[in-house]
Amino acid sequence: MTVNEIAKIVGGVVQGDGNTEITGMAPAVSAGQGDLTFAIDEAQMNAAEKSDALCVITALGTDGFSKTVLRVQDVKAALTAIYNLLPKAHIHEGGSVHQTAVIDETAVMGENVSVGAHSVVGRGARIGPGSDIGAGCVIGDNAAVGTLTRLYPGVIVYDRSVIGDNVIVHAGTVIGADGFGYVPKDGEILKVPQMGRVIIEDDVEIGANSCVDRGTFTDTVIGRGSKLDNLVQVAHNVRIGRNVLIAGQTGIAGSVTVGDNTMMGGQAGISDHINVGRNVRIAAKTGVTKDAKKEGTVLFGYPARDAKEYMKQVAFGTWLYKNAGRIRGLLKRFSDNTRGEK
Amino acid sequence: MTVNEIAKIVGGVVQGDGNTEITGMAPAVSAGQGDLTFAIDEAQMNAAEKSDALCVITALGTDGFSKTVLRVQDVKAALTAIYNLLPKAHIHEGGSVHQTAVIDETAVMGENVSVGAHSVVGRGARIGPGSDIGAGCVIGDNAAVGTLTRLYPGVIVYDRSVIGDNVIVHAGTVIGADGFGYVPKDGEILKVPQMGRVIIEDDVEIGANSCVDRGTFTDTVIGRGSKLDNLVQVAHNVRIGRNVLIAGQTGIAGSVTVGDNTMMGGQAGISDHINVGRNVRIAAKTGVTKDAKKEGTVLFGYPARDAKEYMKQVAFGTWLYKNAGRIRGLLKRFSDNTRGEK
Amino acid sequence: MTVNEIAKIVGGVVQGDGNTEITGMAPAVSAGQGDLTFAIDEAQMNAAEKSDALCVITALGTDGFSKTVLRVQDVKAALTAIYNLLPKAHIHEGGSVHQTAVIDETAVMGENVSVGAHSVVGRGARIGPGSDIGAGCVIGDNAAVGTLTRLYPGVIVYDRSVIGDNVIVHAGTVIGADGFGYVPKDGEILKVPQMGRVIIEDDVEIGANSCVDRGTFTDTVIGRGSKLDNLVQVAHNVRIGRNVLIAGQTGIAGSVTVGDNTMMGGQAGISDHINVGRNVRIAAKTGVTKDAKKEGTVLFGYPARDAKEYMKQVAFGTWLYKNAGRIRGLLKRFSDNTRGEK
Repeated sequence: MTVNEIAKIVGGVVQGDGNTEITGMAPAVSAGQGDLTFAIDEAQMNAAEKSDALCVITALGTDGFSKTVLRVQDVKAALTAIYNLLPKAHIHEGGSVHQTAVIDETAVMGENVSVGAHSVVGRGARIGPGSDIGAGCVIGDNAAVGTLTRLYPGVIVYDRSVIGDNVIVHAGTVIGADGFGYVPKDGEILKVPQMGRVIIEDDVEIGANSCVDRGTFTDTVIGRGSKLDNLVQVAHNVRIGRNVLIAGQTGIAGSVTVGDNTMMGGQAGISDHINVGRNVRIAAKTGVTKDAKKEGTVLFGYPARDAKEYMKQVAFGTWLYKNAGRIRGLLKRFSDNTRGEK
Repeated sequence: MTVNEIAKIVGGVVQGDGNTEITGMAPAVSAGQGDLTFAIDEAQMNAAEKSDALCVITALGTDGFSKTVLRVQDVKAALTAIYNLLPKAHIHEGGSVHQTAVIDETAVMGENVSVGAHSVVGRGARIGPGSDIGAGCVIGDNAAVGTLTRLYPGVIVYDRSVIGDNVIVHAGTVIGADGFGYVPKDGEILKVPQMGRVIIEDDVEIGANSCVDRGTFTDTVIGRGSKLDNLVQVAHNVRIGRNVLIAGQTGIAGSVTVGDNTMMGGQAGISDHINVGRNVRIAAKTGVTKDAKKEGTVLFGYPARDAKEYMKQVAFGTWLYKNAGRIRGLLKRFSDNTRGEK
Repeated sequence: MTVNEIAKIVGGVVQGDGNTEITGMAPAVSAGQGDLTFAIDEAQMNAAEKSDALCVITALGTDGFSKTVLRVQDVKAALTAIYNLLPKAHIHEGGSVHQTAVIDETAVMGENVSVGAHSVVGRGARIGPGSDIGAGCVIGDNAAVGTLTRLYPGVIVYDRSVIGDNVIVHAGTVIGADGFGYVPKDGEILKVPQMGRVIIEDDVEIGANSCVDRGTFTDTVIGRGSKLDNLVQVAHNVRIGRNVLIAGQTGIAGSVTVGDNTMMGGQAGISDHINVGRNVRIAAKTGVTKDAKKEGTVLFGYPARDAKEYMKQVAFGTWLYKNAGRIRGLLKRFSDNTRGEK
């Protein structure tokens, strides 16, 4: 894409050579030939000037700046649009398997797969074309990773887990560990074997140090396009729909279902076997203990309730507190008459 | 064990050759000679038919199925019983130390120990017979791992930590990091050295990406048979009893004690130095800020209270809110008379 | 330092040879020549006697003990003082890069740097003198680690992250993963590229399995001397001041600012874009949803309020509940008169 083409899409004004061909984007310090960079303050403007980038996108003044400039009103919106237009290839280096990686001879590696140093790919595992496995990852036996998917360093994928195309998993996340299933018996605690799988559909992104447990006998599923933040817990047998957004440190207990487009704030929790519908919004720190199937429901508090009702009740609680003296007075005045009615 | 013997224990009906010898269990795709598999839906039934498994356990109809079948009413209960009867050996491959593993020459390795690729075993560390250390684990200097214990990939065990027999630790969990101990002094924050150990007793299971910190000068202890879920935090000097169940994302602050058989829901928290008794149940998201030594106590809310009392109070709060108009009316009516009594 | 010199600083009494030279401290089992050890119970006293340590610090009786003793009233306070006086070198082994470590030829390694087995140091990365990178760490391209900093095993540092001097990062922590930034558009969820950095200033300590995300276009900053516990989440663009203490499982959402010396209890949360002032105290499990800029504010509950007010309101709620019968009675008695006023 040329700068002129990009300018049309993001609604910006070009200064300089609009025919410059752009193949990627990067911050100034690591920008190379073909890259667009950005500047949201003067320091970044100076860094852009010194960089190898061909073009800078900015909302700042650019007097004396020597490179091609794409001036926009909202740098964040523009970069987001460009990032999602550019071929995913710009985040993949392409095709090098580090000599220290241990790839089982029965693993099936697609074309142009990268595997970082000290990674391990197990028996019968499959990595699709163009995918990029960071350093120190472990891909378990018979696990599958799709096309153009990126695992950052230290991701652990248990055996038989299935990860789709264009998925991003950040460092330290664990896919497919055993679910938390036990049966107390005769003073002992028996482990329920966890023999299902994890299925991560296409276009999912999962943050760092999160956990998605394998199903007990069936599958745990993260639906297409859903995004999970860091330190999120997804328990066994959970089925999350499409385009669901789950903020950091949220926990979803066993066998929960979540409908498409639902959003959860940070540190929220959902009790086991609960069904949450489509387009539901769950506020941060909310604890959902009952089904919330109705589309568009907004939940708050613990136990969770309709957010508006909850906030009104909280406000009334505060009103009561502010009128504590009058309430105490009233009860004192009528205490003889009401005594014994408790 | 033969299928007939298993059928007696789990109360099932055998179709086919009941003298078939079973040595392990596995999902159809990875089942080998000697394995029992399971089917809870038709897809799994078809996979079982095509697999190398000798026998399938199911509650479904089996018309036209060619292998030995063990029909039961509750597949989960049956598999749990069988899993806990079979020798633990079925989860261990036995005796191979990968050539890329770095084992200090002073480490003491038991018979039949497996160590995965790129793992590290430190000076004076001891790994007991039949234990299985996954890929990319780090066992610190003078740490000890017992017999038939399994560490999944990426587990980090700090120096001098002690892990017992038949323990399972899932990927990414950190055993023995420094506790959070500081003393502010003269505008600086001084670190309190953390020089105790972690002791994980036999038959414990710990989920993925959890943390058990070492003691300050003594030991942090997880008692025999206790089970911790993913992303659980156990701080320094904590002493957890036997057969305690701790669900995901729960946090236990420093120097807490927890009695045997106590259960905690997800995202619960216990403040530092609190003593929790035996058979106590702590609901999800509950925050325990006072001792709860009485056996059988059920806690809910934050600050935590007796669960029944708490729920009654919540219900009364809702009743008040529903009667907000009448309460406001009453206060208005008597406002002159009660004014000044606050 | 001699035992006599240490005794003066910590206010202890020396028994035995006060001129003994102390260069480090360690628990008895791993104490070597030059080390001071400690005993807070008889078992540790016996271990100290058998150890190679030159001197034991204790508050116990020492009849029949053969080594030099430093008797103090508070072992923890004394050890903390000594730990912070001794040269940091005692935690660093010095200068060995394991042969399995993969160090890019363009990385700049200071003198006396240690790198553990199977670690990876990327293109253009810089590790300062005396720093100690544990086994299985990954230091991304163009990342920088300062002087005398220690990364425990399995720490992942994304590209361009900057870690200062005398920093400690515990196992499994991830520095510099992408922040959670998305823009829903036409039924899809677009990723906002995360191209800023993480800056960890000097003297910071971060616990195990925590996450500090990179900024979107600028930097996420953890200020000098701040201490983060395990499983803490710091989102993109957050700026944390100096000497801030953050207990386990706390989550700080995007673009929050936190002033110097502020303290947070465990499982606390701060909503995005909130500004928290200096010397603010945030209780465990508190959820901060509004700015709290005033120095010295104490916050509790969710949504967070002034802690004293909040506790008074909780107490009044309990008083109301205890008077439920009288309140119900009163409403019943006057119900005709107030009906319709809702």
